[in-house]
Amino acid sequence: MRTVALEIAYDGSNYAGWQIQSNAVTVQGVIEDALGRILKKPVRLTYAGRTDTGVHALSQVGCFETDSAMTTVQFRSALNALLPKDIRIRRAERAPSRFHPRYWARMRWYRYIIWNGEEPVPFFNRYALWVRRPLDIGLLKGYCGELLGDHDYTSFASLEKGQNPRRRIYRCEITKKREFVVLDITANAFLRKMIRTIVGTVLELEKGRRDRTEIGEILSARDRGRAGRTAYAGGLYFVGACFPGFPVMSRFHGLD
Amino acid sequence: MRTVALEIAYDGSNYAGWQIQSNAVTVQGVIEDALGRILKKPVRLTYAGRTDTGVHALSQVGCFETDSAMTTVQFRSALNALLPKDIRIRRAERAPSRFHPRYWARMRWYRYIIWNGEEPVPFFNRYALWVRRPLDIGLLKGYCGELLGDHDYTSFASLEKGQNPRRRIYRCEITKKREFVVLDITANAFLRKMIRTIVGTVLELEKGRRDRTEIGEILSARDRGRAGRTAYAGGLYFVGACFPGFPVMSRFHGLD
Repeated sequence: MRTVALEIAYDGSNYAGWQIQSNAVTVQGVIEDALGRILKKPVRLTYAGRTDTGVHALSQVGCFETDSAMTTVQFRSALNALLPKDIRIRRAERAPSRFHPRYWARMRWYRYIIWNGEEPVPFFNRYALWVRRPLDIGLLKGYCGELLGDHDYTSFASLEKGQNPRRRIYRCEITKKREFVVLDITANAFLRKMIRTIVGTVLELEKGRRDRTEIGEILSARDRGRAGRTAYAGGLYFVGACFPGFPVMSRFHGLD
Repeated sequence: MRTVALEIAYDGSNYAGWQIQSNAVTVQGVIEDALGRILKKPVRLTYAGRTDTGVHALSQVGCFETDSAMTTVQFRSALNALLPKDIRIRRAERAPSRFHPRYWARMRWYRYIIWNGEEPVPFFNRYALWVRRPLDIGLLKGYCGELLGDHDYTSFASLEKGQNPRRRIYRCEITKKREFVVLDITANAFLRKMIRTIVGTVLELEKGRRDRTEIGEILSARDRGRAGRTAYAGGLYFVGACFPGFPVMSRFHGLD
């Protein structure tokens, strides 16, 4: 048996998220179907991270075991020939036999894109949140700085029962590129809806020109009701993960 | 009666082109429906140019007459509230009473975008043609230069019966921006499928490293069979038109 890791990019607009569901079209489901047709038996993928409906990925990692003689290059070509064009296999690589993307990932990088132009642009609908008022980048940077570090992020998440709400955010950085405002955020892992809730919250604080200390108050309240709304899914991109035990599949550079 | 001109941007991915059809969803049809709901009577738009299925527009111009007391700002807001997000009214302006976008337009500007990166990118599917081999920009510039001027473009068009095949191309310019190769082309007017046939042809000539003089031979053959294939619609954008009699609605700048 060999372990094969796939690096996957997808436009999430037309999918009910990554994770397989019985009654909806998901990215995982579509890839597993294609793999099943190639290998002529059912395949289950392990993966680096779930993404919600409408969320995109530049470098999701999926992994499966096989006794097929196909090369990794053949896997990539065969999959890309079967998959819809909004899901692309960027690479297929032989992986260590026990490789599991979710458990091996030590860091995840997500990007959130806001179109901060005056005009609505029909081409950005699915790919960015439109905020018309000119954003105060200094204020946003301040709020984001307060989120760094090791915290209980209960206020910013849809927690699953019994889930540990502590995470460590390593980077939470706002940059302005022309009329786009971009949030880059990395953490050991994220809670469900955490990034979109962070975005919704810092936008509300910015609108009210609130003090950056309010972030600390929201964090320590450990109450989802204290944070802002969950921001639009189409602005969110899973950029990549870092696998110290399998650096070949790490993507933590090249997007700046 | 007032004449109102609309500046319209749309993502053509989900539409059977601009022009109204009885059995397909078109951009014109959707806007006329929305206007009809606002004005409570049927409205017919005149417009600057037809675009085919999948072709996009940054600045299409549509025009109608009305005796409504609504202001142009109210028209824009009311339309944008009713229209799907992949069609946006950028501006509504009071126009000269005899304004007709098609007859008044003296120049049209289209842009064709090629993604010339090594990897397929799922986000560019609907918005650019993917050409994987590194394109020779010098060769492409040469072919495009030969297309300038006043010619019979029969070889590059789907002509309608009895249509005059002469057009004047003022600009036909290739530029490379990172891994995108972009063609900007302006003419007094274009024939049906003319730009996409030009793109398909120059790409085939580039692939064969043919001499630029072949463009002249194809032009003088006046035979559609001599030119290349019609390139992918999703790479084409109607950027704007120039109306000397109504400069307010002209868009011939600001995209470089």
